[in-house]
Amino acid sequence: MQPIKVYADRRSQPSRAVIIFCRYSGESDRFRGDHGGSVQVSAPHRRIQNICSAARGTLIASFVSSEINPMGQVPAIVDGRFKLFESHAILRYLASVFPGVADHWYPADLFTRAKIESILDWHHSNLRRGAATLVMHTALAPFLGLATSPHVVKQAEKLLMQSLGRIESVWLKGDAKFLLGSPQPSIADLSLVCEIMQLEILGDDERDRFLGAHEKILIWMDNVKKATSPHFEEAHELLFQVKASMLSNAAAANQTSEPSTKLKIVSKL
Amino acid sequence: MQPIKVYADRRSQPSRAVIIFCRYSGESDRFRGDHGGSVQVSAPHRRIQNICSAARGTLIASFVSSEINPMGQVPAIVDGRFKLFESHAILRYLASVFPGVADHWYPADLFTRAKIESILDWHHSNLRRGAATLVMHTALAPFLGLATSPHVVKQAEKLLMQSLGRIESVWLKGDAKFLLGSPQPSIADLSLVCEIMQLEILGDDERDRFLGAHEKILIWMDNVKKATSPHFEEAHELLFQVKASMLSNAAAANQTSEPSTKLKIVSKL
Repeated sequence: MQPIKVYADRRSQPSRAVIIFCRYSGESDRFRGDHGGSVQVSAPHRRIQNICSAARGTLIASFVSSEINPMGQVPAIVDGRFKLFESHAILRYLASVFPGVADHWYPADLFTRAKIESILDWHHSNLRRGAATLVMHTALAPFLGLATSPHVVKQAEKLLMQSLGRIESVWLKGDAKFLLGSPQPSIADLSLVCEIMQLEILGDDERDRFLGAHEKILIWMDNVKKATSPHFEEAHELLFQVKASMLSNAAAANQTSEPSTKLKIVSKL
Repeated sequence: MQPIKVYADRRSQPSRAVIIFCRYSGESDRFRGDHGGSVQVSAPHRRIQNICSAARGTLIASFVSSEINPMGQVPAIVDGRFKLFESHAILRYLASVFPGVADHWYPADLFTRAKIESILDWHHSNLRRGAATLVMHTALAPFLGLATSPHVVKQAEKLLMQSLGRIESVWLKGDAKFLLGSPQPSIADLSLVCEIMQLEILGDDERDRFLGAHEKILIWMDNVKKATSPHFEEAHELLFQVKASMLSNAAAANQTSEPSTKLKIVSKL
C-alpha cells in the first residue's frame, strides 16, 4: 500500500495536530512525514509563510505547481490520487482510513460526532481566530514587516479570552478530563490544544497572562499531552526552538542598539 | 416523533442555510422554524445581535438561560434532549437524521465527503471571515455604533476577493454546475452561497464591485437558488427588506441633515 504523504510544517499549529495524530496512530509504514525527508515539502503555513523568506519562493512554487494544494497551504495530504487540505478535514479522513484508530478520536455515534463537529466548527471563528491573530499581530508581524493595528490586537485578545472562558465553562465542566467530559481525547481536543500551544511564541509572561487563570485548561492541555506522549512533545520541539531564538534575538538587539518600535514589540515576548 | 426545534434568524447567513435545508428537505412535520412562531426564538445572531437592541436583552437572556446554546448564538437546534449549535455541524446532523435526504447533500462516500469537509472548513477562515467582516465593518458598524478600522476593512476586502477567486479556480473549474463539479448541490454549496448573498447588504454597487467579475460564481449562485426554490427566495426575503430599509434610512438622512461621517458610510450602500 502506498504511503500517505503528509505535507506539514511543525511551526503551524494545524500541521502539528495532523503530525501528532499520524505518529500516535502508529502509521509509520503509511506515514511519511517531516521526519522522513523525501516526501515532506516544508512549505511554510500561510500564516507564517514569510518567516523563511529565503526559502519561500521555491518551496511555495513547488508546492502549488505540483497541485498538492491549490491554496498553497499546509497541512495537506496525498493518498494515492486523492489530495486533501484543511487540518480538520484531514483529521476526519485519517481517523476513518487508518486501521485500528480508537473510536473516541472521531466517534461513529451520530450524536457524539455531531458534538465534536460543533467544537471543530466553533474553533475556526473563535479560539483560532483570536489566538492566531494575536500571535501574528504581536509576535510575528514585527519580524515579517507586516502592517498591524492596535484595534486588531485588542479584538484578538478579547476573542481569545472569551474563547478560553467558554471552553472551560461549556466543554470542560466538572472534572472533565477531555472536551465534552469524555475520558478519552478526540480530534477536537488535539486541534484546540495545538492552537493554544502556539501562545508559547508570545513568551512566558504573555502566555501566563492568558492561561494563568484557566486551571482547567492547563490540566486539560496536560491530559492531551500525556495521552499522545511522546509524539506531542516531539511535534512541539521546533516551536520551543523558535521561541528561544526569538527571545535570544530580541535580547541581543536590545543590548546592542537603541530600542526601536520594532524591538519594543519583540521585547514583549 | 417530536419536532426538531430550529432557532434561527433569517438576517444571519448561517441561519438561512439551515432554514433552507429544512424547508427543502420537506420536513414540515418535524421542522418548526421561523414560520411556526411558537418555538422560534428570534435571538439575533452574534454578528448582528445589536441590530434589535430593544429586544436583545430579553431574547438573548432567555436563549442562554434555557441552555439551548451556551454561546448565545443562532442557528441552534433541539432534537428531543439533544442540543446542537454551529451551522455546519447542524447541516451535517440534519442530513443524517432527516429521512430521505438525497446523498448528494452530504455524500456517504469517504472521499467525496472529505472534499466537502475541506470546503466547509476552508469557508470559516476565508470566505466567511472576509465577507462577514466586511459587511460588519462597513454596512452594520455605523448603525451599531461599533468601532472599526480602515486596516480591518482593507484586509477583509482582500480576503473576500481572494476567496471568490479561489472558489472559481479550484471548485468551479470548467462548466461545473456546483462545487467540485457535482451535478447536484451539497451542504457546502448552500453554506457558501448564503454567505455571499449577505453582500446584498452592501448595496448594489458594492455587491457588483465584488461579484461583477465572477461570472462563474453568479451562475453557481443561481444554480443553488434554482435547486432550492422557492425556499431560497423565501429565506432571503427578510434580507432584502433589511437592505431596502437601510437604503431608505440613508437616503432620508442625507436629505434632511448635514452629512456626517456616519451617513457618509451608510450612503456607500
